[in-house]
Amino acid sequence: MAQNNKVLTLETLNPGVKEMEYAVRGPIVARAGAIESEIKQGQKKPFSQVVKANIGDCHATGQKPITFIRQVQALVTCPDVLMASSDFPDDAKQRAKRILEGCKGQSIGSYTDSAGLLVIREDIASYIKERDGYPSDPSDIVLSTGASDGIKSIMTLLLTGENGPGKAGIMIPVPQYPLYSAAICEFRAYPICYYLKEEENWSLDVSELERAIGESKPHCKPRAICVINPGNPTGQVLTKENIQNIIRFAHKHKLFIMADEVYQHNIYAKGSEFFSFKKVMMEMGAPYNTMELASFMSASKGFMGECGCRGGYAEVINLDPDVKAMYLKSISAKLCPPVTGQVVMDVIVNPPKKGEPSYEQFCKEKTAVLDQLKEKAQLVTKVFNSIKGITCNEVQGAMYAFPNIQLPPKAVAAAKAANQSPDAFYCFALLEATGICTVPGSGFKEKPGTYHFRTTILPPVEELKAVLGQFEAFHKEFLAKYK
Amino acid sequence: MAQNNKVLTLETLNPGVKEMEYAVRGPIVARAGAIESEIKQGQKKPFSQVVKANIGDCHATGQKPITFIRQVQALVTCPDVLMASSDFPDDAKQRAKRILEGCKGQSIGSYTDSAGLLVIREDIASYIKERDGYPSDPSDIVLSTGASDGIKSIMTLLLTGENGPGKAGIMIPVPQYPLYSAAICEFRAYPICYYLKEEENWSLDVSELERAIGESKPHCKPRAICVINPGNPTGQVLTKENIQNIIRFAHKHKLFIMADEVYQHNIYAKGSEFFSFKKVMMEMGAPYNTMELASFMSASKGFMGECGCRGGYAEVINLDPDVKAMYLKSISAKLCPPVTGQVVMDVIVNPPKKGEPSYEQFCKEKTAVLDQLKEKAQLVTKVFNSIKGITCNEVQGAMYAFPNIQLPPKAVAAAKAANQSPDAFYCFALLEATGICTVPGSGFKEKPGTYHFRTTILPPVEELKAVLGQFEAFHKEFLAKYK
Repeated sequence: MAQNNKVLTLETLNPGVKEMEYAVRGPIVARAGAIESEIKQGQKKPFSQVVKANIGDCHATGQKPITFIRQVQALVTCPDVLMASSDFPDDAKQRAKRILEGCKGQSIGSYTDSAGLLVIREDIASYIKERDGYPSDPSDIVLSTGASDGIKSIMTLLLTGENGPGKAGIMIPVPQYPLYSAAICEFRAYPICYYLKEEENWSLDVSELERAIGESKPHCKPRAICVINPGNPTGQVLTKENIQNIIRFAHKHKLFIMADEVYQHNIYAKGSEFFSFKKVMMEMGAPYNTMELASFMSASKGFMGECGCRGGYAEVINLDPDVKAMYLKSISAKLCPPVTGQVVMDVIVNPPKKGEPSYEQFCKEKTAVLDQLKEKAQLVTKVFNSIKGITCNEVQGAMYAFPNIQLPPKAVAAAKAANQSPDAFYCFALLEATGICTVPGSGFKEKPGTYHFRTTILPPVEELKAVLGQFEAFHKEFLAKYK
Repeated sequence: MAQNNKVLTLETLNPGVKEMEYAVRGPIVARAGAIESEIKQGQKKPFSQVVKANIGDCHATGQKPITFIRQVQALVTCPDVLMASSDFPDDAKQRAKRILEGCKGQSIGSYTDSAGLLVIREDIASYIKERDGYPSDPSDIVLSTGASDGIKSIMTLLLTGENGPGKAGIMIPVPQYPLYSAAICEFRAYPICYYLKEEENWSLDVSELERAIGESKPHCKPRAICVINPGNPTGQVLTKENIQNIIRFAHKHKLFIMADEVYQHNIYAKGSEFFSFKKVMMEMGAPYNTMELASFMSASKGFMGECGCRGGYAEVINLDPDVKAMYLKSISAKLCPPVTGQVVMDVIVNPPKKGEPSYEQFCKEKTAVLDQLKEKAQLVTKVFNSIKGITCNEVQGAMYAFPNIQLPPKAVAAAKAANQSPDAFYCFALLEATGICTVPGSGFKEKPGTYHFRTTILPPVEELKAVLGQFEAFHKEFLAKYK
């Protein structure tokens, strides 16, 4: 070990930090950034720009903000000037006024309750009630700094404070969104990985859940199951029956359900429909309707794509009242989620109503985004399945495709020689040849021996078509090189 | 133990969450909220409103936002409309334009780098260089969701992943800001409490630091020392000599320095001056100028008081390069700090310059806030010291007074009977009698046998005078009751 007078070295650093990975912003993204700099410095590349298909960052790929959201945001920021401006419609002004009345000192510069402004929690509860047909209590709503923060807050409650076999086990899907594995690693908890059934459109199979929990028991105390619906990175939309089976499984094993439902607006496939875990649980009645459930929502996805504001919320139901008090205490040291993120969330759950001046423009903008996403979901599914050596489940929802690539043994060997996972090797080659930045399937975990990558479906249609063309050409060359 | 079919009960909840306390939003604040509701419902009280002196929430107590900050914020939100508006000055527009050019897709709705927008990190580095006279590297700047989030991110690195005597020891001042004790509790680390010397204006005494670290060694591995300057809740401003001694101590014991410098704009006392730990360290030269240091700053305090935007940053210097990479990886799963918080931070470090159209108004607004805070700091110090049974160190900086109250034995006995700490008993009595909500000293930790409370100095001058009058009357009655 080299002499080093630092407090923190790789040897002394928190091992949870050392081990954690977050592939969506991992090494391939760093390389993509470096390539962008190389292009700026005049280096010749076989492409003119990097296409960042690694992250669901809507506005970064050209999606325009929803006008009404930004109007309300600007109004709460500069009410003295803008409330009198004819550039801003009355329904936006009314919403801004109502929010400011909920802010201490009528300023978005004051702290809100740690759970968020009451008026916004009330709007969220109304939205959920209308969506599901079951009541929602504003005191069960906790706003957060994006959904990620909300997920980590709930996971924190579930930890046991023990290392070794007494540690908390959290069931996560594979493939999964890497926030889950990163948080579990940081928290020194135990990931109980259950495989989604690729051959049945990434559905959840109860016998696989039973296998996973059974094998985990010597290593941890299983406490929760995370489900992502619509799926990330896998793009499936769960059927009601599938959700019912998961709820029964969670009840049998006394698991807290963490339902990541941030893509609830992003449903594209014919016959697919979004059912919230809460709705299904309520429909099932006793004993299921008193189970502990946290459902997460975000301002970053859907039709709005307001990632930068870091808005999100959790609806957390059926908590033991003492635990609920502890939960609220545990988030109080964070003071409060960013108020503009709360404001964006409010507009999303309380959009212009029929008859209000902004209604038509809002609907037009929302529909345009969702229609384009639908078109791109179909396009991507079709193109990937037309390429030899690639299969791809239908992108039913969310914002990603997760195609399966059959890599020839020579490519697998070359990857091994380069000390990379085979799909990372493939994705890096794709990046260097075309400028397309995707994320290797290994970053989301995947069934051993299978290879995938995740790509967003976000670039504008014409650009996406061009990207898919470049991709196809690359793939052919890659197969030829390693055949 | 009662039968309970919940996954989470007080018995199974993460013990770190169960034990953690965050007094600034603790039980007395809950009671204050309940009293507000009782007043609304028409209950008669000896006062007409609750005065929330428990939290440094500037806009909540009537401070107006700085116009220029809000202009830039509105401009980046609705550039299409507002860039053409004559209501917004050119220097605000230039700043907004420059920030938007740094955003992907020119939208604040896209994610930024996890460390924040480069253009803003550059501005912060320039600000620090100008403040200290030593260079600052934008790659050492990491923006955060308020300073609290930045502090927790650094503390996360310092954990050891061990329970028992191998756990990380973090030195914290007593009295301290409860974020520190709450985070240490949540992280299952070990708080090494060192007492500030009340009789010498809350300065740090090296022999006390030696005592604290010496006694801690059977229980933990000491890894870091936290210093809050200007002090919270104590309001002192450390002298350069005091800072030098702390740096020498940290070097001797190989401790990472965490310098909470969020009140760097809030200096009121004659002869007091803010010296950053970095500046002092650099002046001291080798071997001190290569020590690991994180300095934290916030958009919530100073003259701006923009608590709701959750803006903040850390300058983290002299990290081992491998550790720096791990640090950046560790924050990547949070995606990025809220962009409007970043924007507010940018305006704070890059305010209008002489000759720019907004310069004079900006200076006027900034000076007005700071002058009033200075007047209130002097007023509070004077009034508290004029009351029998109360002594209060001069409020040299920050936003709080932390008076020492001598409680009669009968009051201490009554508190014990009520199962409260004596100063909590006192603060609750104050709240019920006057509506003034303060935080008991026990919430910040304090030397055993001493009693304090923390009050902000934020209410407008006339209101503060009235509040101090009510306080004095209450205190006399309290002493009479328990004499």
